Amino acid sequence: MERPVIAIYPRQGTPTFVLPELETGKLSDLPYPSQVYAYGEDPQTWPQVVTQAFKAAALTEKSRIGIEPDHLRALELRLLEQAAPKATYEAAEGLVAQLRMQKDQEEILAMRKAVQIAQSALLDTLPLIKPGMSEKDLASELTVQLLRHGSQPVLPFSPIVACGPNSANPHAIPGERRLQRGDILILDWGAGYNAYFSDLTRTFAIHEVHPDFAQIARLVAEANAAARAAARPGIPAEAVDMAAREVITKAGYGSYFIHRTGHGLGMEAHEEPYIRAGNSLLLAPGMTFTIEPGIYLPGRGGVRIEDNILITADGSECLSDLQRDLIIL
Amino acid sequence: MERPVIAIYPRQGTPTFVLPELETGKLSDLPYPSQVYAYGEDPQTWPQVVTQAFKAAALTEKSRIGIEPDHLRALELRLLEQAAPKATYEAAEGLVAQLRMQKDQEEILAMRKAVQIAQSALLDTLPLIKPGMSEKDLASELTVQLLRHGSQPVLPFSPIVACGPNSANPHAIPGERRLQRGDILILDWGAGYNAYFSDLTRTFAIHEVHPDFAQIARLVAEANAAARAAARPGIPAEAVDMAAREVITKAGYGSYFIHRTGHGLGMEAHEEPYIRAGNSLLLAPGMTFTIEPGIYLPGRGGVRIEDNILITADGSECLSDLQRDLIIL
Repeated sequence: MERPVIAIYPRQGTPTFVLPELETGKLSDLPYPSQVYAYGEDPQTWPQVVTQAFKAAALTEKSRIGIEPDHLRALELRLLEQAAPKATYEAAEGLVAQLRMQKDQEEILAMRKAVQIAQSALLDTLPLIKPGMSEKDLASELTVQLLRHGSQPVLPFSPIVACGPNSANPHAIPGERRLQRGDILILDWGAGYNAYFSDLTRTFAIHEVHPDFAQIARLVAEANAAARAAARPGIPAEAVDMAAREVITKAGYGSYFIHRTGHGLGMEAHEEPYIRAGNSLLLAPGMTFTIEPGIYLPGRGGVRIEDNILITADGSECLSDLQRDLIIL
Repeated sequence: MERPVIAIYPRQGTPTFVLPELETGKLSDLPYPSQVYAYGEDPQTWPQVVTQAFKAAALTEKSRIGIEPDHLRALELRLLEQAAPKATYEAAEGLVAQLRMQKDQEEILAMRKAVQIAQSALLDTLPLIKPGMSEKDLASELTVQLLRHGSQPVLPFSPIVACGPNSANPHAIPGERRLQRGDILILDWGAGYNAYFSDLTRTFAIHEVHPDFAQIARLVAEANAAARAAARPGIPAEAVDMAAREVITKAGYGSYFIHRTGHGLGMEAHEEPYIRAGNSLLLAPGMTFTIEPGIYLPGRGGVRIEDNILITADGSECLSDLQRDLIIL
């Protein structure tokens, strides 16, 4: 919102938080000691409080301060820079990613549960899907089922529901278009459990399927299977991308597979390891990511099949097991 | 997510967007011409694309560039600063706030609808509230009802459900605590409609109410009414805060009213005008904000009553009309 929140983790010493007085109650469950610098409603008092927090955390003009560029806003960054203008502020998302990338048993348990919730939610949504239903209404119904099945209210993202030509847009926003006989329908949805996310996609056809899409769907399922088979510790992330891409490229659809094969998944809906060409990061046990190849024919429709994968000691395990063939509803 | 998105609105010329290739489809419905600089999956290519967009938007090292500090992340700010290190980047949230503060008829219509959805959702949730239900489950049920009644999936915030001593924390996160006879229960929730939000709070008692809280609830309702009566064009925002605060302070509970009286509401859940001491901004027709005084007794519980107000030509209109007395469930 409009109020800055800053967490400072010094190399040594006590973690220090700057946050609104209103929010201090949220720190009561922290499993480690902390110092809190809380501020009131007047924005003019904020810089002073940040300066106090800096001092308390023993930060100086000579400190090297790592920040998370994809979370920290200019609002907070400016306050930090005011408190210590000569300190070095370095992008440290790589460090955080490294800390988070290999999940422990408790984290994996939460992700399994998030996958289960997402799968059950889909199964309870399917009987409700009928021609005439709008993308928006279907997205709303799928969200309802996610909550009913125990997802935390903060989802990884609002479900994507895209039918007919809209399904050719991988990041479509559900709109007023209504399901029609012969439509391709993409559902991309996920649940949250204990702060960990799942992220799945399945593709459907309404009543009947054009032979082109039946073929494309088989191809995407094959690419998905090839990537799952490739995933194991010790190989670079890009090798998994390549395994999926090869299947699609060989069949002549390479230019219609317009995104990376997947992304890491955990406390964030997108995190390392990114499963893309050029990423030489070596996969290791405990890493969790999506495999989600797709083929998109502009103006006609698309097919995407997305699973959630865990790298194990000697290979990988697919956490999701919903049917991957094109499902005719 | 992890990919930067930048919109550049030059003083003259065509709005220019930097975004992932995957997302370009979202610009197709824009009601004005635009230039798009899209990038692929390799982060190393991003700075170059931002530089191209800068040139296309005719920005130079001498440009004064307004940014929104509470939206723009360090990720995007750093890319901008790389593209034109000597340009001036100025916090311009005040300008944006000014553009957004006075709502036109269409915006007000969307907000009315968002209020209606929130109210209907509550009315359909109330019969389900029973001792033994957890805060989390109740929050989930309220969210389900918001969606069923037509809220867009992006809510202003996840509903706050706080019972017993938790209700003394104005920004509590729903947890595992279960409703008990004699609990105070605060529900704070809102809907979204056509990108505009509502934000309401009501307070309940489970089966029975302690006389202290019956008295506090009357006081908060009186403070809420005083603030609503005060709200009109031409007075400073702080006068509305003062009207509510005076009632509570006179009764000896001033130090338990630990937040501002309200905040602006519209496309953002919190925006100008902030209804707080020290804000001399003059209210004007079309402004919309919350009035939400509260009294919080640490360890025991709290009461808050929140309505959504529209400043009219000669006074104000309350968009919400749910019963404001403490409701015994």
